[in-house]
Amino acid sequence: MDLLRFLKPKSFAIVGASEKEGFGGGTCRNNLTYSKDLDRVYFVNPSRSEVFGRACYKSLLDVPGQLDAVVIATPKATVLEIMRQAKTKGAAGVVVYAAGYGEVCTPEAEADELELKNLALELDLAIMGPNCAGFINYVDGKFLYSILHPERDRKGKVGFVSQSGQILMSLLDSPNMTFSYCFSCGNAKVVSPEEYLSFLVDDEDTAVAAMYLEGTGNPALLEDCFHRAALKRKPVVALKVGKSERAMAIARSHTGSLTGSDAIFDALFKKYGVIRVSDMQELLSVSLALAEIRCLPQGDRVAIICLSGGETAICADEGHKIGIKFPDFEKATVEKLRKLLPFYAAPDRNPLDITATPAYQPEVLSQTLQAVLNDPNVDMVLLGFTLMEEIVDNAFYVMFEGIAMALELTEKPFACLNFIEMTRNAGLTKRFADYGVPMLPCTKYAFEVLRHILDFAVFDYGRKRRMVIGEPIEAMGPVKPAKSGMAGPGKTSESIEPSGPREPVAFMPPTGTRVTLSELESKALLAEYGIQVGQGVLAKSVKEAVAAAQTIGYPVVLKIESAEIAHKSDVGGVKLNLANDREVEKAFAEIMDSVAQNAPKAAHNGV
Amino acid sequence: MDLLRFLKPKSFAIVGASEKEGFGGGTCRNNLTYSKDLDRVYFVNPSRSEVFGRACYKSLLDVPGQLDAVVIATPKATVLEIMRQAKTKGAAGVVVYAAGYGEVCTPEAEADELELKNLALELDLAIMGPNCAGFINYVDGKFLYSILHPERDRKGKVGFVSQSGQILMSLLDSPNMTFSYCFSCGNAKVVSPEEYLSFLVDDEDTAVAAMYLEGTGNPALLEDCFHRAALKRKPVVALKVGKSERAMAIARSHTGSLTGSDAIFDALFKKYGVIRVSDMQELLSVSLALAEIRCLPQGDRVAIICLSGGETAICADEGHKIGIKFPDFEKATVEKLRKLLPFYAAPDRNPLDITATPAYQPEVLSQTLQAVLNDPNVDMVLLGFTLMEEIVDNAFYVMFEGIAMALELTEKPFACLNFIEMTRNAGLTKRFADYGVPMLPCTKYAFEVLRHILDFAVFDYGRKRRMVIGEPIEAMGPVKPAKSGMAGPGKTSESIEPSGPREPVAFMPPTGTRVTLSELESKALLAEYGIQVGQGVLAKSVKEAVAAAQTIGYPVVLKIESAEIAHKSDVGGVKLNLANDREVEKAFAEIMDSVAQNAPKAAHNGV
Repeated sequence: MDLLRFLKPKSFAIVGASEKEGFGGGTCRNNLTYSKDLDRVYFVNPSRSEVFGRACYKSLLDVPGQLDAVVIATPKATVLEIMRQAKTKGAAGVVVYAAGYGEVCTPEAEADELELKNLALELDLAIMGPNCAGFINYVDGKFLYSILHPERDRKGKVGFVSQSGQILMSLLDSPNMTFSYCFSCGNAKVVSPEEYLSFLVDDEDTAVAAMYLEGTGNPALLEDCFHRAALKRKPVVALKVGKSERAMAIARSHTGSLTGSDAIFDALFKKYGVIRVSDMQELLSVSLALAEIRCLPQGDRVAIICLSGGETAICADEGHKIGIKFPDFEKATVEKLRKLLPFYAAPDRNPLDITATPAYQPEVLSQTLQAVLNDPNVDMVLLGFTLMEEIVDNAFYVMFEGIAMALELTEKPFACLNFIEMTRNAGLTKRFADYGVPMLPCTKYAFEVLRHILDFAVFDYGRKRRMVIGEPIEAMGPVKPAKSGMAGPGKTSESIEPSGPREPVAFMPPTGTRVTLSELESKALLAEYGIQVGQGVLAKSVKEAVAAAQTIGYPVVLKIESAEIAHKSDVGGVKLNLANDREVEKAFAEIMDSVAQNAPKAAHNGV
Repeated sequence: MDLLRFLKPKSFAIVGASEKEGFGGGTCRNNLTYSKDLDRVYFVNPSRSEVFGRACYKSLLDVPGQLDAVVIATPKATVLEIMRQAKTKGAAGVVVYAAGYGEVCTPEAEADELELKNLALELDLAIMGPNCAGFINYVDGKFLYSILHPERDRKGKVGFVSQSGQILMSLLDSPNMTFSYCFSCGNAKVVSPEEYLSFLVDDEDTAVAAMYLEGTGNPALLEDCFHRAALKRKPVVALKVGKSERAMAIARSHTGSLTGSDAIFDALFKKYGVIRVSDMQELLSVSLALAEIRCLPQGDRVAIICLSGGETAICADEGHKIGIKFPDFEKATVEKLRKLLPFYAAPDRNPLDITATPAYQPEVLSQTLQAVLNDPNVDMVLLGFTLMEEIVDNAFYVMFEGIAMALELTEKPFACLNFIEMTRNAGLTKRFADYGVPMLPCTKYAFEVLRHILDFAVFDYGRKRRMVIGEPIEAMGPVKPAKSGMAGPGKTSESIEPSGPREPVAFMPPTGTRVTLSELESKALLAEYGIQVGQGVLAKSVKEAVAAAQTIGYPVVLKIESAEIAHKSDVGGVKLNLANDREVEKAFAEIMDSVAQNAPKAAHNGV
């Protein structure tokens, strides 16, 4: 399967091209609005000879030349035949918008999905979807995507994979988000979300790989992506739901994903320095900030400068709340600041209130920023003010001038933070971004983003960083990364290895006790959870176990769920190949008895 | 002092009227843009006969008729003379923009401030300022305010008092905030922030009283305001900085406020159900939500409805994080939902994913919302979706229709929550607000606001609510509220008393131990802290104590700072009337010895 050619198509066709509202019409309009190579985008519709004034072919087979990809915007019943035609035209993959497959949970729909999948494998054809919104490749300007959004330039360096079409839509609707690629995976039964992530990790045009995930069907590839990203120091940002029971249940009925043990995901994220976020705005803001910032801080000591005492005090409190280190300035810095600032300012304080005066004096602002940026105690500097959408005060332009001057003479990372939502002049935000200055969002988000940037900056995979404070680091050789599911455009992961020992996974079971597993044990556990993550359900009673088994379908495996039992089969905690309700009932009772006898002190959560 | 006439002036003059940029020019332009009674706004400038084409008087004394207020937009040197003229013209108060008084911390500037204050007392004239941006009375349409903001209608029901001009400016810059009144207090040496708050608590046009405070110079009046607001069930929202040492130091040099023990403020807020927020956006959002929402929930059980599985799962996790209760729906509700929603939806889940389909079917959406709103297990309902600024999808209008239908047939509170910053179509937001539906901000803020609404709703002052879970409630008679510093327009507080026992203040000292004080003890402690709140500094060493005493100015008082010592003088923990460094050094040593001897087990933080 040539995923690379599918995601970077030179030419593609839209079957179901239309002027009407809907998936076909939306895809056509997106291409008419944004495409810079419209000549290699072909419209196909058996009942139209023109769409939006452009030639429209009756059949995919009539399109001249070879195609790399095909968008299928027609009803479900037509999909298989169009896939065959796409193969005939040389396509590497197809986007299938049609819904009514696995997501509707009926035997017929699931059979249809299996038929779709089998045909794709037979034809060696990648499928995005079914039940998806498609993808946009901003790097090459390709729009195999169906939804309309307010028109603006969104080209950037953040790649995003989403298991939810709605979440991708919301990110595209954000007034300042930019992307290299974005993928709405849909049911993702042929190409998995992990394979798109793998593409983004390898892709040289993608500075930050972000994803919304509800679970994983391929934990080995997921871990391999994280591993390769950590080696390249490419930030991976993950919005993973399922911290709460209710969210787990929702995810289960949404994409059929089993969210698995959230603690295992968390341990995996921590091990590889993956940035875990908890909502869309946080994902968007931290991804954009990491893609824009001119360099990473060399440490986690921060200075914040504001133009008013009140805002400075808010920053001090909010920073304190999430453990930001505000170092004192060096004496020489304080002396420089004392000369620059009004006499009633207090130049020995960090966060620093420089008063509003320097906002009207670019030279003074520039020198003030330089003094703080050059302080050896400081790794990163932020300036706090609220950039308005409609600018009625010239001070913002003056400030931009002062900041730009300071940045040209210094090297440390710098960002601006805002105090009010729904502001931000687009022109000035862009000019700041061009200087490598992210315009961070409203206070609570800004400090979360700052925390993530600092954590990522000091995370040193395979060398110094320890997952559990106080745990010893065992010297260990590098492990061979799992094979990626696809060939990526970048360096292969085998060519790079961590330069020092890798650490044990720290696993925090739900009971709150903390255990540290060896590398091999953690691998074994992950493999075990890999299955559970993909197909397992936690059952606390025999009744729940039977219900779960019926849902999953027989035969099933029962395993004790306990972080305190490393070798489950040693204590009689595993029963394989259970064929029916009665066997599950029996196995449940046996496991409970056996565990109670062989591991009487181990806390467990069920099977 | 007639604060009411000053804040609700029928006629006022602007001395220093001008067409130039600056305080005088800004005030004139604000009136030309917004005033509906411009004939009773008089421009005064000795060197102009016309300003913006309107008549301009050479002297304040030339203005015809009586004046209620005067804005002094002229340099500091002219202020005293204009105050005398204002008195001659019958004004109840003046706004003084000029800076260079107490805030600059020189003996001359402080002497000037004292002179200003003495003249105000002599003339019985209220002063807002000096060093302030003025105030806006949106209720009557009076603009004694100097800064220009993007033009829009800001009339609403939130009153706001700010010890920081910048913070008020940012709130006015927010694209959807509305106000009844807003006050930039400045140095506030004649009329205190607490007196403006008192006005807002009494004012019938103000539904929510909000404030930014760095400390208090009048803890008795502050507590009285909170008490009266609690009796009326008028929400008070407080952004109080000083949780961290660094924020305390900043506040000290900003407004000269001593933030006092943050724990005492926190206890005071909790006692009276004051909503404590930690940044401007949170203040703005919770104030606006409480001013707009059609009614308060009768309990704290919430249902959240989203149009996508991903967003639903995010809500489940974020709600879980801050302890939101998501009850299960009643069977009858689940049955109703099962009939309304697509067959692959899971109608027994809360938060509930209704899928995107009902967003295009107003009747279905309305019935779905009604089913959930009418569920007896549910006290409040939220619908999560991201309202775009530029609407490219008709679904938003359809949804508005569905929501409006549902609200007309139900009574419980309802709000919308958004997932992305910087969106929100102004027209639809206004239409929702007119239906009593707040448009909550981006996720993290939305859940904070929800938490505050629920806490305020279930806070039952003087009856059921307990500050520390598990502490017994002692039966106590009502206390006489402190006298308000001013006459308010509303009911006097003496006419209402709590209907049941009031509770002890729960005080959490920094060490983390928890003590509960009796009503009288807490009163005594508050009075003691009242002094410290106003003028105290925590000193941990004899050197710090001397430095603090020098800053405050002799004579000073030294008191042991310990939550575990209720009667400080009994253990030798108080030394009065210390006149110089040597006496402070001696007293510090004596207190430490005495406390070590008399209260050896008590933890303390210094003096």
